[in-house]
Amino acid sequence: MKVGYLGPKSSFTFQAANEIFPENTLIPFASIPLTIEQLENKTLDFAVVPIENSLEGSVHATVDYLFDQTAITIKKEVILPIRQQLLGTHFVEQVKKVLSHPQALAQTEQYLKKHFPEVLLEAVSSTTAAAQYVAEHPHDKVLAIASKKAAEEYGLQILAKDIQDNSMNKTRFWLLSMDKDKQNLARYQNKKVTLFVSLPANLPGALHQVLSAFAWRKIDLAKIESRPLKTYLGEYFFIIDILLNENEVLIENAIKEIELLHAKVQWVGNYPVDEIT
Amino acid sequence: MKVGYLGPKSSFTFQAANEIFPENTLIPFASIPLTIEQLENKTLDFAVVPIENSLEGSVHATVDYLFDQTAITIKKEVILPIRQQLLGTHFVEQVKKVLSHPQALAQTEQYLKKHFPEVLLEAVSSTTAAAQYVAEHPHDKVLAIASKKAAEEYGLQILAKDIQDNSMNKTRFWLLSMDKDKQNLARYQNKKVTLFVSLPANLPGALHQVLSAFAWRKIDLAKIESRPLKTYLGEYFFIIDILLNENEVLIENAIKEIELLHAKVQWVGNYPVDEIT
Repeated sequence: MKVGYLGPKSSFTFQAANEIFPENTLIPFASIPLTIEQLENKTLDFAVVPIENSLEGSVHATVDYLFDQTAITIKKEVILPIRQQLLGTHFVEQVKKVLSHPQALAQTEQYLKKHFPEVLLEAVSSTTAAAQYVAEHPHDKVLAIASKKAAEEYGLQILAKDIQDNSMNKTRFWLLSMDKDKQNLARYQNKKVTLFVSLPANLPGALHQVLSAFAWRKIDLAKIESRPLKTYLGEYFFIIDILLNENEVLIENAIKEIELLHAKVQWVGNYPVDEIT
Repeated sequence: MKVGYLGPKSSFTFQAANEIFPENTLIPFASIPLTIEQLENKTLDFAVVPIENSLEGSVHATVDYLFDQTAITIKKEVILPIRQQLLGTHFVEQVKKVLSHPQALAQTEQYLKKHFPEVLLEAVSSTTAAAQYVAEHPHDKVLAIASKKAAEEYGLQILAKDIQDNSMNKTRFWLLSMDKDKQNLARYQNKKVTLFVSLPANLPGALHQVLSAFAWRKIDLAKIESRPLKTYLGEYFFIIDILLNENEVLIENAIKEIELLHAKVQWVGNYPVDEIT
């Protein structure tokens, strides 16, 4: 079995993929489109990509790729806490520089301001690249911000643990496959359905009508978000995540009703949600 | 008068700002937060920043900055067509490299594939930086993709005109100020109101209730979009753009009703919309 993921190795996407599959099945790719492309070309059985971070919001590369195709479905969601570690080869007296990915630097901004107010912060291409540089330059007085996994991978010490400013920082990842069959999710506690809905035109109130079809059936929406259709400024499609509570038939009825309003509904998948703590 | 904008000079934001103000009042800043910060610090009278592109979607830096404060208001919207030009010092036989900002390279991808399939594409920090490099290295066989304004600024020839793949590519810009007074917009044809709405909790159907308050009054929503509240994964606020048609009282009534549902409503501004062709 081959599972592609947004690399490099020891990225947070690696950790999400490794929650589902053994390490020796996992293959890193340099970007989200490259990862999903290999799934479409059938050189992969599965792909794992990020879909949303609690601070940054949706990962548009994932959403936009999935909207433009109909062959790929969501098989599972993994929610991972994002915990950043301060890594070095040994305790350093006069730190000169801290390296990391721009997002990890942003996520630890207050910690760095407090503990390293004078130190140069340098953005590199990934947290893994930062850890690798530090491991290969033990005399440079340079530290990295990266994951626990990166510490193991490069034999680095964790000099300060869980230094992210927001302890609730989490990322959602989707496990994607080309098997479009609806899953039987009876045995799962937490599960969702994701739909993409394109409205017929910019009818005032069209979105309200779509939401009405869910609301009067008491269907719980976990999320609704708009993305540009890339046709004209002001035209959007909507990503709708629904919490599944023994109500799949109600959801199917709502979809039929929405389609009668001439909206286009794309069923992206029904899937269990696995939150890692 | 001092007007800050997202630079560098001859950026598309410069063009939007220059549609409203003379060039000698305009001051470039390196990022959106830096631009708006100077407005907050009262070293600027106005700031001009991008809010949405028809292909890329919303500019989160602008939305998130405005959500975290209440002193700044929108005074005007300018919609600009995004037209990319191929620039050089002279006609070049064997082009070696094309330089531009990653977004401009993405916006001209098909053109470049067709006309320069073998040529190296190099991402630089801005379209302006690309034009400057080409002007300063006339013997390098390097071309830039940048705006018409950049061609004028650096004395470059337009070797191919309007090479963007999508002719409907447009960007919305907001003119921001610290003057919170509601504007009298009677004399304008096209005008909008922007609200930020935070829902009390993840009540199923809460967004539907909010939209109902607008729908039954036949208030036209131009846009609705969610952004993470940055508290917990799955909590959002909504950006709602309303088309204004002599119905400001109806909007105010809808807002009162929404506040009775314990949603928090932030009035970001009422403003005229100026679409440049």
